[in-house]
Amino acid sequence: MDPEIKAALDKLFASDTALYQARGFQRRLGWGKKPALVNIDLANAWTREGYPFTCEGMDTIIQAVQQVLAAFRAKGLPIVFTTTAYDIVEGPHSDMGLWGKKIPGEVLRAGTETVEIDTRLERRPDELVIVKKQASGFRGTNLNAYLNAAGVDTVVITGTTASACVRATAEDAIAEGFRPIVVRECVGDRIAGALEWNLYDIDAKFGDVEPLEGVLDHLRRNEF
Amino acid sequence: MDPEIKAALDKLFASDTALYQARGFQRRLGWGKKPALVNIDLANAWTREGYPFTCEGMDTIIQAVQQVLAAFRAKGLPIVFTTTAYDIVEGPHSDMGLWGKKIPGEVLRAGTETVEIDTRLERRPDELVIVKKQASGFRGTNLNAYLNAAGVDTVVITGTTASACVRATAEDAIAEGFRPIVVRECVGDRIAGALEWNLYDIDAKFGDVEPLEGVLDHLRRNEF
Amino acid sequence: MDPEIKAALDKLFASDTALYQARGFQRRLGWGKKPALVNIDLANAWTREGYPFTCEGMDTIIQAVQQVLAAFRAKGLPIVFTTTAYDIVEGPHSDMGLWGKKIPGEVLRAGTETVEIDTRLERRPDELVIVKKQASGFRGTNLNAYLNAAGVDTVVITGTTASACVRATAEDAIAEGFRPIVVRECVGDRIAGALEWNLYDIDAKFGDVEPLEGVLDHLRRNEF
Amino acid sequence: MDPEIKAALDKLFASDTALYQARGFQRRLGWGKKPALVNIDLANAWTREGYPFTCEGMDTIIQAVQQVLAAFRAKGLPIVFTTTAYDIVEGPHSDMGLWGKKIPGEVLRAGTETVEIDTRLERRPDELVIVKKQASGFRGTNLNAYLNAAGVDTVVITGTTASACVRATAEDAIAEGFRPIVVRECVGDRIAGALEWNLYDIDAKFGDVEPLEGVLDHLRRNEF
Repeated sequence: MDPEIKAALDKLFASDTALYQARGFQRRLGWGKKPALVNIDLANAWTREGYPFTCEGMDTIIQAVQQVLAAFRAKGLPIVFTTTAYDIVEGPHSDMGLWGKKIPGEVLRAGTETVEIDTRLERRPDELVIVKKQASGFRGTNLNAYLNAAGVDTVVITGTTASACVRATAEDAIAEGFRPIVVRECVGDRIAGALEWNLYDIDAKFGDVEPLEGVLDHLRRNEF
Repeated sequence: MDPEIKAALDKLFASDTALYQARGFQRRLGWGKKPALVNIDLANAWTREGYPFTCEGMDTIIQAVQQVLAAFRAKGLPIVFTTTAYDIVEGPHSDMGLWGKKIPGEVLRAGTETVEIDTRLERRPDELVIVKKQASGFRGTNLNAYLNAAGVDTVVITGTTASACVRATAEDAIAEGFRPIVVRECVGDRIAGALEWNLYDIDAKFGDVEPLEGVLDHLRRNEF
Repeated sequence: MDPEIKAALDKLFASDTALYQARGFQRRLGWGKKPALVNIDLANAWTREGYPFTCEGMDTIIQAVQQVLAAFRAKGLPIVFTTTAYDIVEGPHSDMGLWGKKIPGEVLRAGTETVEIDTRLERRPDELVIVKKQASGFRGTNLNAYLNAAGVDTVVITGTTASACVRATAEDAIAEGFRPIVVRECVGDRIAGALEWNLYDIDAKFGDVEPLEGVLDHLRRNEF
Repeated sequence: MDPEIKAALDKLFASDTALYQARGFQRRLGWGKKPALVNIDLANAWTREGYPFTCEGMDTIIQAVQQVLAAFRAKGLPIVFTTTAYDIVEGPHSDMGLWGKKIPGEVLRAGTETVEIDTRLERRPDELVIVKKQASGFRGTNLNAYLNAAGVDTVVITGTTASACVRATAEDAIAEGFRPIVVRECVGDRIAGALEWNLYDIDAKFGDVEPLEGVLDHLRRNEF
């Protein structure tokens, strides 16, 4: 990001934080007893070059997610991937609903490579893929039921984008009664600034935004 | 059904109806402006012989559903099919959640012929298939969003079973703000009595249970 | 119930059970680690004489619920009551939505004695009252979030009616990932037969229907 | 806002918009056939001085909302107010769930003046008040059912805050199948910048952010 803009945002966040601290926002949720890892839209349309949905800096982000995945796999904890895909992208009976009237959903055709989980994440057969049709991983999906039945109380979130699906998933996670922990190095977006302000809002009101090292450390040092 | 049991149920329903009528239940919802057809679990596991989920009298029911399908297709109205299927049926991370602990969900493997929509219904590419993991067509699915975005206000329901997925779908349809119309000749179950008492309860409290001929007639005589 | 009808229903359930057992239904969910008690619509409109919603045998049922309440209170476990009430029962902007077109919802006015929790249950200030507008305790309410945030995995259900709100709550409980346990002696209805067939369906497919004594015994013998 | 920061944000939005336009985002949803007005958290805790939740510039915002209210009332269209309030703010059984661990929810006690709708909006008896416990007006409430039963397809949104409840409501509105229209002059927040970037994100991906005059004009010129 342009250093001048970065400086302006930092100044803004500093004054906002002063107000939030004085008012009792930005509290820490912390970890519960059993976390699940929810990787939002780490499918080719977001992680690879050349799509309308392509995000910035994904090679670095994928490497960070690989580390979180390894930590969850080592503990045998539940891992979920989401992708966004539509079965009917034309005509009056499209399952894009209204969202296709706002964003270029028509490129996200179910059954195509576009919407497949990025192979660099080496998804395993017992790691659930949820095909969602809205921004949040919880809206119109079985995610709440799945996590709840598995006794999960904490949702570690990675993926794309900060300004839509990751944020909506964090908002819904706390609204459904799960502790959201968003891993800072594991989240991407395609427009400048969106990462900064959305992580800022999430951390103030919906979930804890934590550094990768702290998340890995917590997973290493605890049994679940 | 055993004629003696049939007579006993009829006697019961007669006295129950007297009470309901005196109390103001069993009101008629009627049709709204735009119906959609929602066919619940008319997939092989329910419609064909030899599965734990196989229902009774499905050949006749399929023929009745074919007529409703033809009427909806003639008017270009939205048509949805549901099936119930699981991606992970073994181990601690199954997406059956708790339901697999109650019913034999483990036979409903995603991607197998077992859970495919019955070919006699000749599903068309613009007729959405929703893969659900709970009883109701609305729980953990995008059905509310789909119907809502399509301007639907009435949900015509067919399928199996009366005592689980059809009933739960009717309950949720009215709870989400849609008028449920359950087509009597288009609903099946596998145990004796379940059809009778569940259609009775639905008609008293959740949706209008209507004869096939009336439904076909309404569709023929109206533009949507 | 008329002994002849009772005998007919028993015969029906016996043959249905043979089929269900052969097919792998009617499995036992059992208890999880932390139960909550959810008392459905034990408000005056259902528990006292003289309302369209009045149920049968409520004095006995209330006594049974009192015992379950005492057991939950002794262990400090979460207790929830629901009632069904509407703020606007006339005109085009009623919050009854479509349900008021099917059942006599217009008598359930928010803020009246009609919809207050029965005083015989001696609700305490830390026992949440959820005002719902649909049948299920989960639809359009914060119940899933509340239970989830409290670490609850098992929902013990009492109340009225078997054929609507109790059943819909049990269906939704398992659909959201909670183990439903319905206490047989604590459930009421207003029409003959409805208790029998709805508890039968619930036990076959959605939750464990258990005798009062077994529930009290489990609560007595365990720490939570 | 500090003019230097304002300039930096404007520069950021300009480059972001170039990317979004090239990629097919920021499409217009437009109006449907029947709008409802949903006023988010215009209760004293947000609109009056002296609360942790107090927002900036509320006197001006209230005046703008008054105009939208008058326009909806003139057409007899549905109007909803939300507030956020909790019945149990202490102890292990609080209905704040996890959200009270992130924000100062403990001041929002149900039944107090703090959470009452601002009297300057002169709420009428047939305008529904929804008491929510999460950010979104849709989560854990009957809002979807209410709007759906009323035949609403468009949700005009006002209120506070841009960075939490207004945004989450817009996200959920489109996810449930309603067209969200957020009235720019009618939305508030308490921290600098939050209004700008959240309205920017909403307009890019979730709903149309429209000027007050355009909204009033549409309402004036159409019958519903």
